[in-house]
Amino acid sequence: MSLLTVGTIAFDSIETPYGNVEKVIGGACTYISWAASYFTENIHLVSIVGDDFPVDELEELRKRGVNLDGLEIVRGGKSFFWSGKYHDNMNNRDTLITDLNVLADFNPVLPEASRSSKYVVLGNLTPSVQSAVLDQLDGSQKLIALDTMNYWMDVAMDELVKVISRVDLLTINDEEARQLSGENSLVKAAQVIHDMGVTYLVIKKGEHGALLFSTDDMFYAPALPLSQVVDPTGAGDTFAGGLMGYLANTDDISMNNMKRAIIAGSAMASFCVEDFSLNKLKAVSMPEIKERFSKFKHLMYFDMI
Amino acid sequence: MSLLTVGTIAFDSIETPYGNVEKVIGGACTYISWAASYFTENIHLVSIVGDDFPVDELEELRKRGVNLDGLEIVRGGKSFFWSGKYHDNMNNRDTLITDLNVLADFNPVLPEASRSSKYVVLGNLTPSVQSAVLDQLDGSQKLIALDTMNYWMDVAMDELVKVISRVDLLTINDEEARQLSGENSLVKAAQVIHDMGVTYLVIKKGEHGALLFSTDDMFYAPALPLSQVVDPTGAGDTFAGGLMGYLANTDDISMNNMKRAIIAGSAMASFCVEDFSLNKLKAVSMPEIKERFSKFKHLMYFDMI
Repeated sequence: MSLLTVGTIAFDSIETPYGNVEKVIGGACTYISWAASYFTENIHLVSIVGDDFPVDELEELRKRGVNLDGLEIVRGGKSFFWSGKYHDNMNNRDTLITDLNVLADFNPVLPEASRSSKYVVLGNLTPSVQSAVLDQLDGSQKLIALDTMNYWMDVAMDELVKVISRVDLLTINDEEARQLSGENSLVKAAQVIHDMGVTYLVIKKGEHGALLFSTDDMFYAPALPLSQVVDPTGAGDTFAGGLMGYLANTDDISMNNMKRAIIAGSAMASFCVEDFSLNKLKAVSMPEIKERFSKFKHLMYFDMI
Repeated sequence: MSLLTVGTIAFDSIETPYGNVEKVIGGACTYISWAASYFTENIHLVSIVGDDFPVDELEELRKRGVNLDGLEIVRGGKSFFWSGKYHDNMNNRDTLITDLNVLADFNPVLPEASRSSKYVVLGNLTPSVQSAVLDQLDGSQKLIALDTMNYWMDVAMDELVKVISRVDLLTINDEEARQLSGENSLVKAAQVIHDMGVTYLVIKKGEHGALLFSTDDMFYAPALPLSQVVDPTGAGDTFAGGLMGYLANTDDISMNNMKRAIIAGSAMASFCVEDFSLNKLKAVSMPEIKERFSKFKHLMYFDMI
């Protein structure tokens, strides 16, 4: 099934305890598309870059089955730039620079062929822009996922709640779930957020894994403990990409299949963090991905007598 | 099999977003013994209280199969007192008062009958006191577990590493594992800590669950997401009590059985936090405990196709 992803493409400069990288490839759409491309080939990407963005990176995406008709390339424009520094424990980071550049005027226009995509991932963007994307869909979607962050809860809560009510799956972190719902308990937070209109809530907890809530069931996927986490940047988007790619491939949105999709997302995220930028994500093989699925199964398996 | 627990018995005054309680029953030994008593009857408790400690609380423990011959009751002495306040998210707390009282002079003497206990849990105490307990054991133990905290890493690291080298299972939280090992990655931290001489490392992550490491395997047990966490005090000790009670009952220290024991500990901890003090832990039934085991199984189960 076809998958549409709308969001940022960026240059990132990143400092972690394991090193620094300057102006490497980043952005939600990039991570989502690469992760999804291991599961499905029919991907539409809608984003914006300046003409400073390397053509060969786009060519690589095309070769992975990503349709770039919806990518706006602004002549003379500069691509979105983000710079951040991670603390020693890798769970916290400081944003050093955010240069929106061409992203400041991003008004996504969906190419005709992408409007009937059965699966849609909206990366973290201004809620009104996310709404404008939904307006262009043809209504035939099977599952629409939306990512957002605390910033929009602070400055545009009404708009955000409106766009959340129009999607099927929401991905946020635990503190954001608490802020959005006003509830400390994640179980109660999930109830409040389900009442906003979403069928599935995924609470991302970074190194502690992810929680999936349907209206009457829940599932916990740990993050795989790793010998070395080099750079957590993009892990959340990679998780969403793996999850949605898996769903687009299997075309089954039951809770049981959502659980598998969460594992697929967790497995892809576990590769993402092992190197800077897309380095590991680009190099991984299907046997390695399947081996990681098995590691998750083993990590979580016990037989109770 | 027999289980020996050595540690504190206390009065606690606690403030959480859900209310305040004054001078309720607390202490590591109390939580450990109550949790373990659902799985095994042959429990020796070694601790110290003042004669201000309510006799009926001790009688209740006796009825649960807990032998109190090793409990020193200091005439005219006051029991250990701790007071703390939890933040809104329940993951952080401030200690308001620590009155050691009779605990300041705690030199545990093991009754003869307890020295051959096959399973031993040493609650968080001065490492030199924990060592003095080990000196009194007869050497026939199958598994000795030790709990400790960052404070001892700050002020008595050498003594602590010495006592760790003498036990089989260590329980600490994730930040403590990082401090003890000097490694950010929990996988690497586990390797360093295994090299100190322990067979099993349990990393407690509070609301994010627990990680179990043997030298060549790992297991992740999430915490059960709950509608209401009233008071996290004692959850770690309850976890240790459930774990060790399960082991004492099944008398199997293989990694596969350790995984089940971790679930038993997690289940008991999930009851502990649903009310203040021992209130919920005292009231729970075996069918409720088994139902909670099933909830953990369901929370973690997926079939990968």
